Amino acid sequence: MSGLARFSVNQMTVKQLSLPELVHECEDLGIGHVGLWREPVQEYGVAAAAGLVRDAGLTVTTLCRGGFLTAIEPQERARALDDNRRAVDEAAIMGTDTLVLVSGGLPSGSTDLRGARERIADALAELGPYAEQHGVRLAIEPLHPMYAADRCVVSTLGQALDLAERFPARQVGVTVDTYHIWWDDTAPDQIARAGASGRIHTFQLADWTTPLPRGVLTGRGQIGDGSIDMREWLGYVEKAGYTGAIEVELFNDALWARDGREVLTETAERFVRHVTG
Amino acid sequence: MSGLARFSVNQMTVKQLSLPELVHECEDLGIGHVGLWREPVQEYGVAAAAGLVRDAGLTVTTLCRGGFLTAIEPQERARALDDNRRAVDEAAIMGTDTLVLVSGGLPSGSTDLRGARERIADALAELGPYAEQHGVRLAIEPLHPMYAADRCVVSTLGQALDLAERFPARQVGVTVDTYHIWWDDTAPDQIARAGASGRIHTFQLADWTTPLPRGVLTGRGQIGDGSIDMREWLGYVEKAGYTGAIEVELFNDALWARDGREVLTETAERFVRHVTG
Repeated sequence: MSGLARFSVNQMTVKQLSLPELVHECEDLGIGHVGLWREPVQEYGVAAAAGLVRDAGLTVTTLCRGGFLTAIEPQERARALDDNRRAVDEAAIMGTDTLVLVSGGLPSGSTDLRGARERIADALAELGPYAEQHGVRLAIEPLHPMYAADRCVVSTLGQALDLAERFPARQVGVTVDTYHIWWDDTAPDQIARAGASGRIHTFQLADWTTPLPRGVLTGRGQIGDGSIDMREWLGYVEKAGYTGAIEVELFNDALWARDGREVLTETAERFVRHVTG
Repeated sequence: MSGLARFSVNQMTVKQLSLPELVHECEDLGIGHVGLWREPVQEYGVAAAAGLVRDAGLTVTTLCRGGFLTAIEPQERARALDDNRRAVDEAAIMGTDTLVLVSGGLPSGSTDLRGARERIADALAELGPYAEQHGVRLAIEPLHPMYAADRCVVSTLGQALDLAERFPARQVGVTVDTYHIWWDDTAPDQIARAGASGRIHTFQLADWTTPLPRGVLTGRGQIGDGSIDMREWLGYVEKAGYTGAIEVELFNDALWARDGREVLTETAERFVRHVTG
C-alpha cells in the first residue's frame, strides 16, 4: 500500500494481536513503524522484543508509557520514579527515542490541580537528566480534559508546554494527539510553540466519535469515523517542522472485538485515505 | 437553614419534583431562588408557572435553555432562531433576566468547528437585540470539551467570551459553571475578563465525579463529592465582581432516583457546607 511511509501503528490499536503477530502483519502489509506498550513488551521479554522488531526492520516510534507522577505520599512517589526509570531503560533497549508520559490524576480526596501539576515538574527534574543519559526523550501527553481527575491533570498542550519548557527539549517535549486536543482553538498556536523549540516528540491520531462509553476510555474512533479533520492537524504539525512518523493509537472495544489483521489493514487504508492520500 | 441567601436550585437537580412540588419545597426549606427549564415550564403553562413562582416569592435566576445555533441548513437555522425568540419571550414572562444558551454541536458529517462557532455569532447578531428589547440577557455556556461534537462547540470560557464580546454585555454574556471549566488553568483569568465587562450572567455549580456514565450527560456530582474546590471558584467570580445567585445544577441518575425533597435538602446542606458556610 503506498502512502504508508510515515504510518506507525500503535500496538494498542490492535491489542488482540500478540507481539510476534503484530510484527509479522506489519512486515506483510509494508508497515515500517510501530508504537509499543510496556506491558506486552515486558510479557514477551524486553530484550527478546527488541530483537524481534529489529530483525523485522521495524522502527519503534514510541514506548507507552511512563508517568503517573502526581502521588503525594513519599513511598508512592519513590515507586513511581523507579518505575519511570525502568520505562526509560526499556525504551532505550527497544531502540526508541521517545517515552510517552501520562502524567497522572488527582490523588484520592484532593482538589489541588495546581499542586499535582507542580509535583509532575518535580519528578521531571529527576527523570529528564536520566532519560537524556539513555538517549530517550520524555513526551508529556496532554490528555483530554475529561481525564483530568482520574488519569492526567495535564489537559492542554499549553499546560504540557508550560511544564516541558522548564527543561531542555532533548529531555522533555510533548505528545500531540488529535483525540485529546481537537476541540481546543488555541492548540494550533501551541503546536507552533512546541515546534519552535523542537518539542513535538510524537504525533498521534485518533478520531472523536460519540456517544462516549462508560469510563470514556475505550471509545476512540477509527480514522475517518468522527469529527476530526486529520489533514488539518497534520498541516499544523508539519508547519511547525514535524517530519516524523504519524502514529495511530485507538482504544476501541468494537475494534478489539474484530480480527486483528483486518483492523490493521483497515487502519492503514484509513490512514492513506484521510491523512496522507 | 442559614447560608442559603444566594443559593438557587436549578430545576434539573430535582427533576423528579413537579413544578408546584418544587415551589412548595423551596418555600418550606427557605430557598429563595430557582433556575427553571423550558420544557417543564411549558408543560405547566408559562403564564401559570410565572404566577406560581411569583406568588411564592421566588426569584427565577435563569431559564434553561436556548441555543443549538450551529445548523447549516437554512430552514433548520430559521427554526432554531424562532425557537430562541420564543425562549426569550418565555424568560421575560417568567421574570428572569438570563437565558442560558447551549450553543449546539457539529452538524452531522461536519468537522468544521470554526465554521460552527461563526454560525453561532451570526445567530447572536439576530438574537441579541431581540433579547435586549425583552429585558433578557443571553448567557453563552461553555460546555466541557467532551461535548464539543454533539452538544456544544463552545468549550472554554475564552471561546465563549470571544463570541460574547462582539456584542454589548447587556445582550450577551457567559455562564460560568464549575463542572465545565474546573480543569482549565486559564479559566480564572477568563473569569476576570468576563467580570471586567460585566458578562458573568450566571454562576452554576456541579462537582466532577468519576467514572463518567455512558454518554457523559448524567454524571454531574453532588457538591462535595468530587474533585472541584467550590470555594476557590466562588472566590474567582467574587473577585471579578459577581454578587448574584449561585445555582446548583446537577444531572445525576442516582440523585434523580431518590426522593426529591431529600435531594433538595441534601443539596442545600452541601451548599452551606462547601460553598458559603
